Amino acid sequence: MAMAKLVLLLVALAGSSCAAWELNIRMPAARLDGEVRDAAAPLIHALRPLVGSAGDLGRRGGVACDSWRLAVEAYNKRDWKTVPASCEGYVGHYMLGGHYRRDSRVVVDEAVAYAEGLELTGNGREVWVFDIDETSLSNLPYYATHGFGTEPFNATSFNAYVMEGSAVALPETRRLFRKLVSLGVKPVFLTGRSEEQRAVTAANLRCQGYAGWEKLLLKPLGFKGTAVAFKSGERRKLEDAGYVIVGNIGDQWSDILGAPEGARTFKLPDPLYYIG
Amino acid sequence: MAMAKLVLLLVALAGSSCAAWELNIRMPAARLDGEVRDAAAPLIHALRPLVGSAGDLGRRGGVACDSWRLAVEAYNKRDWKTVPASCEGYVGHYMLGGHYRRDSRVVVDEAVAYAEGLELTGNGREVWVFDIDETSLSNLPYYATHGFGTEPFNATSFNAYVMEGSAVALPETRRLFRKLVSLGVKPVFLTGRSEEQRAVTAANLRCQGYAGWEKLLLKPLGFKGTAVAFKSGERRKLEDAGYVIVGNIGDQWSDILGAPEGARTFKLPDPLYYIG
Repeated sequence: MAMAKLVLLLVALAGSSCAAWELNIRMPAARLDGEVRDAAAPLIHALRPLVGSAGDLGRRGGVACDSWRLAVEAYNKRDWKTVPASCEGYVGHYMLGGHYRRDSRVVVDEAVAYAEGLELTGNGREVWVFDIDETSLSNLPYYATHGFGTEPFNATSFNAYVMEGSAVALPETRRLFRKLVSLGVKPVFLTGRSEEQRAVTAANLRCQGYAGWEKLLLKPLGFKGTAVAFKSGERRKLEDAGYVIVGNIGDQWSDILGAPEGARTFKLPDPLYYIG
Repeated sequence: MAMAKLVLLLVALAGSSCAAWELNIRMPAARLDGEVRDAAAPLIHALRPLVGSAGDLGRRGGVACDSWRLAVEAYNKRDWKTVPASCEGYVGHYMLGGHYRRDSRVVVDEAVAYAEGLELTGNGREVWVFDIDETSLSNLPYYATHGFGTEPFNATSFNAYVMEGSAVALPETRRLFRKLVSLGVKPVFLTGRSEEQRAVTAANLRCQGYAGWEKLLLKPLGFKGTAVAFKSGERRKLEDAGYVIVGNIGDQWSDILGAPEGARTFKLPDPLYYIG
């Protein structure tokens, strides 16, 4: 489709360095309130008239794409495999326009307000759990060239992309991360990425401005079980080790369900894929 | 505001009978896909150009109203007292236009698909829990003349409205209700309305086309405790009595949180108020 070509063009503009990726991918995200902040923005602007509206523009080929997205976010839609084919354009515009960034900002504003209101002991045991993919780092460069979630997940090509270490920071989440560090709450990354991706993941996070985390917990090779089982199990170990999980943020419901969830959970938007 | 006057006009068109209320309030809900199904619809049509879009139209006075609504639905925004004043128009148009109905339809489509996929025993013990306000019955006639949630809750005036018994069916929920009855799953109403509102509530439900429920559970007079405590406690009693809760639907997270939740939960949209 035409938009995919534009996206490819955008991606092609990016260099291979950490900073260059960040520049190009943050571009649409930075375009808030109608402001245009860099030279490539007109490409995004050209896409804007197609942005799925909360009204009837969100309907494509019989699927009300905005209602589908809401059902995903409110956990009414579960165990779905791919984005409806007719919603590729809607999801692409949602992700590349200001809408995804704006939705994420409201979530992080809530999280920051909650964190600032905590009565912290400052004993060094208070932690906040962060998921990585589509929470701390964005894989939009990958999904933009793979149908925005409309194509079945391909582990081989996705893992090859992960090993590039080129994912970009989600700026709202990084804002929360830095706020927590400044408050004395220690961030713990907890991800479904596997242990063999530890080095590239740590490098990618550092490259994208994350610093000062307490732990980086990855899935052991050969782990059998659901995401909820893995993640709630790791949170249990944290608590057993004396940590207090004051907050937990992820883009999947499987990041934040399953005791112990953490004292307060936050669900970032993600219309690209579902992990059960 | 101008919209409020139009709504008042709509309400004024309604008679006092059950059927008349239903006719007038179902009007905007029935106007889907641009179809106009009755004579009063042009009034609603006149409101449509102001419908808050998922794009920048949802931003009013610094609040991104569509992002605020998403944060409510995904349980990121909690313990809020009123809709932001600057979002009154956005919420009003969301509720009166086709958007609310469309979002509700997708949720109920999921619920119906889930129900149809159940392997039912047919032993008469399988129940589905329905909340009432903003789930089975709509109080939009009240909220449309009380600022669409921007005014602080007034128990006196709201209870006076409830005692009129004039709330209207939410047609998507009624569709689910009837489907479940046809499948042999027994509906149980579980509501925060108080025991002294039993007669008017039952009459209101019957008048609006609900028939064949197994139980109508209301809050005892003088009950102290949260909505979650009351509702999860009642669900526990159902299970202790031998019922199997195969599904649970409500418009508040407090309807569907707290063990036993039911085998599957569904969250209908509600940007009007929060019950913790």
